[in-house]
Order: sequence, then structure tokens, then C-alpha cells
Amino acid sequence: MITAKAFVLAVTILSAALAIGIGTIAPALGQGKAISSAVEGIARQPEAADNIRMTMLIGIAIIESLTIYAFVIALVLIFANPLLQLL
Amino acid sequence: MITAKAFVLAVTILSAALAIGIGTIAPALGQGKAISSAVEGIARQPEAADNIRMTMLIGIAIIESLTIYAFVIALVLIFANPLLQLL
Amino acid sequence: MITAKAFVLAVTILSAALAIGIGTIAPALGQGKAISSAVEGIARQPEAADNIRMTMLIGIAIIESLTIYAFVIALVLIFANPLLQLL
Amino acid sequence: MITAKAFVLAVTILSAALAIGIGTIAPALGQGKAISSAVEGIARQPEAADNIRMTMLIGIAIIESLTIYAFVIALVLIFANPLLQLL
Amino acid sequence: MITAKAFVLAVTILSAALAIGIGTIAPALGQGKAISSAVEGIARQPEAADNIRMTMLIGIAIIESLTIYAFVIALVLIFANPLLQLL
Amino acid sequence: MITAKAFVLAVTILSAALAIGIGTIAPALGQGKAISSAVEGIARQPEAADNIRMTMLIGIAIIESLTIYAFVIALVLIFANPLLQLL
Amino acid sequence: MITAKAFVLAVTILSAALAIGIGTIAPALGQGKAISSAVEGIARQPEAADNIRMTMLIGIAIIESLTIYAFVIALVLIFANPLLQLL
Amino acid sequence: MITAKAFVLAVTILSAALAIGIGTIAPALGQGKAISSAVEGIARQPEAADNIRMTMLIGIAIIESLTIYAFVIALVLIFANPLLQLL
Amino acid sequence: MITAKAFVLAVTILSAALAIGIGTIAPALGQGKAISSAVEGIARQPEAADNIRMTMLIGIAIIESLTIYAFVIALVLIFANPLLQLL
Amino acid sequence: MITAKAFVLAVTILSAALAIGIGTIAPALGQGKAISSAVEGIARQPEAADNIRMTMLIGIAIIESLTIYAFVIALVLIFANPLLQLL
Amino acid sequence: MITAKAFVLAVTILSAALAIGIGTIAPALGQGKAISSAVEGIARQPEAADNIRMTMLIGIAIIESLTIYAFVIALVLIFANPLLQLL
Amino acid sequence: MITAKAFVLAVTILSAALAIGIGTIAPALGQGKAISSAVEGIARQPEAADNIRMTMLIGIAIIESLTIYAFVIALVLIFANPLLQLL
Amino acid sequence: MITAKAFVLAVTILSAALAIGIGTIAPALGQGKAISSAVEGIARQPEAADNIRMTMLIGIAIIESLTIYAFVIALVLIFANPLLQLL
Amino acid sequence: MITAKAFVLAVTILSAALAIGIGTIAPALGQGKAISSAVEGIARQPEAADNIRMTMLIGIAIIESLTIYAFVIALVLIFANPLLQLL
Repeated sequence: MITAKAFVLAVTILSAALAIGIGTIAPALGQGKAISSAVEGIARQPEAADNIRMTMLIGIAIIESLTIYAFVIALVLIFANPLLQLL
Repeated sequence: MITAKAFVLAVTILSAALAIGIGTIAPALGQGKAISSAVEGIARQPEAADNIRMTMLIGIAIIESLTIYAFVIALVLIFANPLLQLL
Repeated sequence: MITAKAFVLAVTILSAALAIGIGTIAPALGQGKAISSAVEGIARQPEAADNIRMTMLIGIAIIESLTIYAFVIALVLIFANPLLQLL
Repeated sequence: MITAKAFVLAVTILSAALAIGIGTIAPALGQGKAISSAVEGIARQPEAADNIRMTMLIGIAIIESLTIYAFVIALVLIFANPLLQLL
Repeated sequence: MITAKAFVLAVTILSAALAIGIGTIAPALGQGKAISSAVEGIARQPEAADNIRMTMLIGIAIIESLTIYAFVIALVLIFANPLLQLL
Repeated sequence: MITAKAFVLAVTILSAALAIGIGTIAPALGQGKAISSAVEGIARQPEAADNIRMTMLIGIAIIESLTIYAFVIALVLIFANPLLQLL
Repeated sequence: MITAKAFVLAVTILSAALAIGIGTIAPALGQGKAISSAVEGIARQPEAADNIRMTMLIGIAIIESLTIYAFVIALVLIFANPLLQLL
Repeated sequence: MITAKAFVLAVTILSAALAIGIGTIAPALGQGKAISSAVEGIARQPEAADNIRMTMLIGIAIIESLTIYAFVIALVLIFANPLLQLL
Repeated sequence: MITAKAFVLAVTILSAALAIGIGTIAPALGQGKAISSAVEGIARQPEAADNIRMTMLIGIAIIESLTIYAFVIALVLIFANPLLQLL
Repeated sequence: MITAKAFVLAVTILSAALAIGIGTIAPALGQGKAISSAVEGIARQPEAADNIRMTMLIGIAIIESLTIYAFVIALVLIFANPLLQLL
Repeated sequence: MITAKAFVLAVTILSAALAIGIGTIAPALGQGKAISSAVEGIARQPEAADNIRMTMLIGIAIIESLTIYAFVIALVLIFANPLLQLL
Repeated sequence: MITAKAFVLAVTILSAALAIGIGTIAPALGQGKAISSAVEGIARQPEAADNIRMTMLIGIAIIESLTIYAFVIALVLIFANPLLQLL
Repeated sequence: MITAKAFVLAVTILSAALAIGIGTIAPALGQGKAISSAVEGIARQPEAADNIRMTMLIGIAIIESLTIYAFVIALVLIFANPLLQLL
Repeated sequence: MITAKAFVLAVTILSAALAIGIGTIAPALGQGKAISSAVEGIARQPEAADNIRMTMLIGIAIIESLTIYAFVIALVLIFANPLLQLL
């Protein structure tokens, strides 16, 4: 029989996997778009390469933060889930 | 048997994961689009780089706020859920 | 056994997460599009930068209001749900 | 056991969340598109900025009304639902 | 136990929310497209602004009528549902 | 217990809501596209504005008829459903 | 209990609603595309307006016939369903 | 209780509605595309209008035949279904 | 009770409807694309009209054959289904 | 009661319908694309018409083979299914 | 009652149909794209026709191999399934 | 009754079919894109044909390897599944 | 009856198939895009062919690594699954 | 009977497969886009090849990190899952 504990644990595991799985989709697309534009920009204006690359790095660092949020939630769910104390 | 408490906890965990997972999709795409345009703009008009980068940062900060809303909801659901007192 | 109270609470939590999750998708895309156009506009016409940035800010503030509606509904559902009195 | 009252309340909550969640998707996209065109228009014809901005504001106000409809339905469902008297 | 009355009421509430939720999607996109073209048209031909704005307003008023249909159905379902007399 | 009458009524309500909900999607998109082209056409050829606007109005009136079909079906289902006599 | 009659009636109602709902999607899109091209064509060649408008009307009349088929099926299902005699 | 006859009848009704519903989607899109191109072609080459219109009519007649197949199947299912004899 | 015969008949009916419904989607789109190109080609090169129209007709006849396959399967399932002998 | 034989027969019928239904989608789109390009090519280079048409015919014959595979599987399932001997 | 054997056979049949059905989607699209480009290339450079056609044939032969894999799996499942010995 | 063995065998068969079915989708699209570009490249630069064709063949061989992985998994599941020993 | 062991084995097999199936989709598309650009680049700048091909190979090797991760997970699940010891 | 342990293990395996499966989709698309732009950039500006390739490598290394997150979660779930101690 599926116990209450097992049910909560299973949902926790699935949730962590979904959070990180879904959480990588858009950031990767957004970063790919930004890098792609940066590379095209450098090819068109090589002398502005430093300026472009710096702007790109600031941008994809901010996008990376979005995945970090999802990664943090996933790790909290697996390693430090306060709700599991309530069982 | 799945108890009432376990059911609510499981839904809470899944909801938090979904909120942050879905909540990163569009902001990342939007930010990627904005950064991409900024980088292209700098490549086309290097002397307007500061103006462009500032506008871009204001914009993606506002978009970032959307994910923050979802992150706040997720954290509230996990760490300070008032509805769990009602059980 | 899943009690009536637990069922309503679980649905409330899931609803709040969905409302804010779905409610960020389109605003972020819309804002990203607006910012992207603004940045491109500044790169093309640097002397109209103030005019463009002001129009952009008015616009994304209005879009931001859409997510605020969803955020308000989510907070009302969690912290001040009148329907929970009826149970 | 899930009572009739609890079932109706749960559906009410979910409906309100869905109405406002789905109801923000298209307006935000539509507004983003309108703002984006307005910003591009100003960049191309700075001297027509007032005319463009006014047309844009009329337009996105009309679009905003669509979300208001959904918001009204959501608030009615939560705070003043006549159907709950029938239970 | 879920009574017949509760079942019909729940379906009514969900239907009203879906009708207005789905009913805003396409009108908002259509209006956004129309406004976007109008704004671009004004930027290209400022002297035809009145003509363009009037055509745009006629058009989006007709589109608005589509959402009104859905809004009417939603209000009828909630406030004046003849089918509920049959129960 | 869900009675036969309640089941039919619930399906009726849901069907009416779906018919009008789905029935607004494509007409609104189609009308938006038509209006958008008309507005662009007027901006390109202001002297042909009357001709363009008339063609546009004929067209979107025909498209409007599609939603009217769905609206008629929805009203018939709610207010004059012959099948409900058979119960 | 759900009787056989109620089940068939419910499916009939849902089918009618779906037939007309789905049956408006593509015709509206197709008509919108045709009208849009016609309007653009008139803007580009005002002297060919009659020729273009006539071709457009023939075309969208043929497309309209597709929705008529679905409308006919929906009306037959509601008002003159031979299968209901078999019950 | 749902009898075998009622089950088959319900599936028949739903199938007919789906067949005609789905069967209008692509033909309408295809016809819209063909008409749109024809109209654009006439606007570009008014002296070839007859040739273009004839080719268009042959084409959309062939596309119309696809929906006719689905309409035939739907009518056969409703009015002359040989499988219902086997019950 | 749903008998074995009724179950197989119901699945047969649904399958026939699905086969023809799905089987019209892509051929109609493909034919629409081919006709559209043919019409555009005639508008661009009226003197090659016969050559173009012939190539188009060969092509859409081959595409039509795809729907014929699905139509044949649907008719076989309804009127000459060898599997129904096995019951 | 649904017998084992009826279950296998029903799945067989549904499978055949799905195989041919899905199996026409992409080939029709692919052929439409190829024919469309061929027609455009002939319009641009009428003197290469034979060469283009031959290449097109080779290509769409190969694509046709893909649907033939699905058609063969469908016919095998209906008329010469070796697995039905195992029952 | 559904026996173990019938269940496995039914799944086998459905799997074979799905494998070949899904397995034709992308190869047909890919081949259509390749043929389309080849035809356009010949129209643009008739003197390179042999070179282009050969490259195209090598390519679509490789793509054809992908469907062959799926066809092989489907035939193995129907005619030489080693797993059926294990029952 | 469905035995444990039958359940595992059925899942194995379905998994193998899905693996190869899904596993052909993207490689075919990717290869089609690569071949299409190669053919266009040869049409634009016939003297670089050998260089282009070689690069294309290296590329699609690497893409082919992706489907091979899925094919290997499918064959392992059918012919040499170590997990079936554990039953 | 489905035993616990059979259930875990079935899920394992399905998971392995899904992991490799889904895991080939995007890498193949990404590689196809990269190869396509490389081939176009060589056609435009034949003298940079070595440089382009090297960059392409580095890139698609990195993308290939993504599928390798999924392949590793699939093989681990089938051949060396530590979780199966826990049963 | 499915035991609690088996249920949790099955969910764990499925979650790991889904996490890595979904986790490769977007990174591969993003990397493909970035490589594609880099290759095009080199073809347009061969003298900036080193600069472009370096920017590309920094970018796709950051994107690779997103899949690494998902890979880490998958490995943790399989080999070092702390939640399995709680059973």
C-alpha cells in the first residue's frame, strides 16, 4: 500500500526533477539568442567586440540567475525540505 | 493510506515547483530578446552603447521582477504557508 | 482520508501557484518585445532616446499591471480567502 | 469525504485563478506588440511622437479592458458569487 | 457526497471562467495587431492619422464585440441561468 | 448523487461556454489581420481609403457571421434546447 | 444515475457545440487571409479593385460553405437527429 | 445504465461531429492561401486575371473535395450507418 | 452493459471518422501551398501558364492520392470490415 | 462484457486508422513543399521545366513511399494480421 | 475479460502502428525540404543540375534510412517478435 | 487477468516503438535542413561542390548517430533486455 | 496481478526509452542548424572552409555531449541501476 | 501489490529520466543557434575568427552549465538520494 510518507516523497522527487527540467528551457533559449546576437555583432563590428562581449556577459548572468532560482528550489526540496518535518 | 496532511503537503511541494518552473519561462525569453537587441544595437551604434545598456538594464530588471513574484510565492508556499495552520 | 478542508486547501495552493505562474508568461514576453524595440529604436535614433524610453516605460508599466492582477489574486487566495470562511 | 460545499468552493477558487491567469496572456502579448510598434514608429518619425503615443494609449486601454472583464469575473466568483447562495 | 445541485453549480462556475478566459485570447491578439499596424501607418504617413485612427477604432470595436458575446454568456451563466430553474 | 437531469444540464452549460469561447478565437484573429492590412493600405494609399474600408467592412462582416453561428448555437443550447424536452 | 437517454443527449449537445466551435476556426483564418490580401491588392492597384473584390467574394463564399457544412451537422444533431429515434 | 445501443449511438454522433469539425480545418486554410495568392497575383498582373482565377477555381474545387469526403462520412454515419444494423 | 459487439462497432465508427478527419489535414495544406505557388507563378510569367498548371495538376493529383488511401481505409472499416467476421 | 477478442479487434481497427491517418500528414506537407518549389522554379526558368519536373517527380515518388509503408502496415493489420492467429 | 495474451497483442499492434506512423512524419518533412531546395537550385543554376540532383539523392537516401529503422521495428513487432515467446 | 510478465512485456514493446518513433523526428529534420543548405550552396557555388558535399556528409553522419543510439536502445529492449531476467 | 518488481521494471524500461527518445530531439535540431550554417558559409567563402569546418566540429561535438548524457542515463537505468538493489 | 518502496523507486527513475531528457532540449537549441551564428560570422569576417570563436565558446560553456544542473539532479536522484533514507 502506498503510505502517506511515500506519497509525499515521490511527489517531492518528481517536483524537483520538473523544476530543474522546465527551469532550463527558457534560459537556454534566451542565452542562445543573446550569444548569437553578440557573435553576429562582433562579426559586423570587430572593434566593438569588448563592449559587446561585456554587455552579453552581464545579460546572460542575469538570465542564469533565473535557472539558479529553480535549482535552489530543487535542492531545497531534496536536501532541506521543511515541509517533510510536518509529516 | 494517504492522509489529509500528506495530500496538502504534496500539493504544496508540487505547486512551488511548478510556480518557479513556469515562472522562469517567459522572463528568460523576454530578457534574451532584450539583450539580443541591445547587443545588436551596440554593434550598429557603438557610440550609443551607454544609453542602450542603461535602457536594457532598466528593462530586464522590470522583467526580473516577474520571476521574483513567482519565487516569492514559491518560498511562501514552502516556508511560511498560512494555509497549513488551518489543517 | 482526504477531508473536505484539505481538499479545498490543496486546490487553493495549486490555484495560487498556477495564477502567478501562468500570469508571468505573456507579460514577460510583451515587455521583452517592447524593450527590444526601444533599444533598437535608440540605436537607430540616439537623439530620440528620452522620448522612446518614456514611451517604453509607460507601456511596460501598463503591462506590469496585468501581472499585478494575477499576483493580487494569488495573495488573496493564500492570505485573505473569504471562501475559506464558508467551510 | 469531500462535501458538496467543499467541491463547489474548490472549483470556484480554481476557476478564479484560471480566469485571471489565462486572461492575462493575450492582452499582454497584444499590448507588447502595440507598444513595440509605437516605439519603433517614434524612432522613425520623432516629430509624430505625440500622435503615435496617443493612438497607442487609446489602443492598449481598449485591450486592458479585456483583462478587466476577466478580473471582474474572478472577483465576482470570489467575493460576490450568487451561485453560492443556492447551495 | 457531491449532490446534483453542487455538480451543476460547479460546472457553471468553471464554464463562466473558461468562456471569459478563452474569449479574451484572440480578440486581444487581433486588436494588438490592428493597433500595431495603425501606429506604424501613422509613423509612415502622419497626415493620414485621422483616417487611420478612425478605421482602427471601427475595427477594434467590431473585435471587441466578440469578447462581449463571451462576457454576456458568462454573466448569463452566473446571474440569470434559466437552466438552473430546471433542477 | 448526480442525476441524469443534472448531468445533461451540466454538459449543456459547458457546451455553450465552449462553443462561444472557441468560436471567438479565429474570427478575432482573422478580423485583426484584415483590419491590420486595411490600415496599412490606407497609410500607403490614402486616396483609396474609402474603397479599402468598404472592402474591409464587407470582409469582417462575413467573418463576424461565423461567430454569430456559434453564438446562436450557444443561445439555443441555453434558452431553447429541444433536446431537454426529451428527458 | 445517468440513464442511457441522458448520456446520448449529453453527447449530442457536446458534439453540436464542438462541431460549430471547431468549424469556425480555420474558415475565419482563411477568410481573414484572403480579405487581407485583397485589401493590400486594392491599395497597390486601386484601378483593379472591382476585379479583386469579386475574386475575393467568390473565394470567401466557398470557404463560408465549409462552416455551413459544420453548422448543418450541428443543427441536424440538435433539431432532427435520426439516431435519437433508435433509442 | 448506459446500454450498448446508447453507447454506439453516442460514439456515432461524436464521430460525425469530429469528422466534419476536423475536416474543415485544413481545407479552409489551404483555400484561404490559394485565394490570397490569386488576389495578390491579380493585383500584380491585372491582365492575367482570367487565367489566374480559373487556376484558382480548379485548385480550390479539388481542395473542397477533401471536405466533401469528410462530409460524406459524417452523413453516412448519421443517416445510413450499416454498422448499426449489426447491433 | 456495453457488449463486446457494441464496443468493437463504436471503435470502428470512431476510427473511420478519425482516419478521414486527420487524413484531410495535411493534403489540404499541401495542395493549398502548391496552388498558391502556381497562381503566383502564372502572375509572374503568364506565358508559362500551361506548363505551370500541368505541373500543379500532376502534383496535387499525387497528394490527393494520400487522402484517397485514408478514405479507402475509412470505407473499408465501415462497409467491408473483415475483422467484424471474427466476432 | 468486453471479451479479449473484441479488445484486440478494436485496438487493431484503431491502429490501422491511426497509422494511415498520421502517415499522410507529413508526406502531404513535404510533397506540397516540393511541388510548390517546382512550380516556382518553372515560373522563373521556363526553359528548365523538364529538368525541374523530373527531379520533382523522383522526389515525391520517394516521399510517397513513406505513406506506402504506413498503408502496408494498415492493410496488414486489417487483412493479414498474423498476431490474430495467436488468440 | 481481457487476458494477458490479448493485452500484449493489443499493445504490439498499437506499437507497430505508432512506430510507422510517427516514423514517417519527420523524414517526409526533411525530404520535402531537401527536394524543394534542389528544385530551386536547378531553377537557379540549370547547368549544375546533375551535381545537385546527385547530392539530393544521397541525402534523401540517408533520410529514408531513418524510416526504414522504424519500418523494421514495426515488422519485427508484428512478424518476428521474440518477446511473444516469453508469454 | 493481466499478469506481471505480460505487463512488463507490453511496456517493453511500447517503449521500443516509442524510442525509435520519437528518435527519428529530429534527426530527419536536422538532416533535411543540412542537405537543403548543401544543395543551395552547390547551386550558388558549383565549384565548391566537393567541399560542401563532404562537410554535409560528415555532419549528417554525426546526426545519424543520434538515431542509432535510439535504435540500439530499441533493439536492446526487444532482443537483449537484461531487466527481463529479473522477473 | 502486477507485482512491485514488475512495476519498477516497467517504469525503468519506459524511462530509458523516453530519456533517449526525447534526448535526441533538440541536439539533432541544433546540429542540423549548425551544419546548415557551416555549409552555407563555405558556399559563400570557400577559402575559409577549414576554419568554418573546425568551428562547426567543435560545436557539434559539444552538442553531441548532451545526447551522451541522456544515453548514459538510459544505459545506467538498464544495465547498472543501483535503485533495483533496494527492492 | 505495489509497495510504498516500489512506488518511490519508480517515481525516482522516471524523474531522473525526465530531468535529463527535458534538460537537453533547450540547451541544444541554444547552442545550435550560437554555433550557427558563429559559423556565419566567420564566413562573413574570416579575420575576426578567433574573437568570434572565443565568444562562442564562453557562451556555450555557460549554456552547457544548465544541462549540468539537470544532470547533477538526475545523478543525485539515482545514486545519492537522501529522501530514500526516510522510507
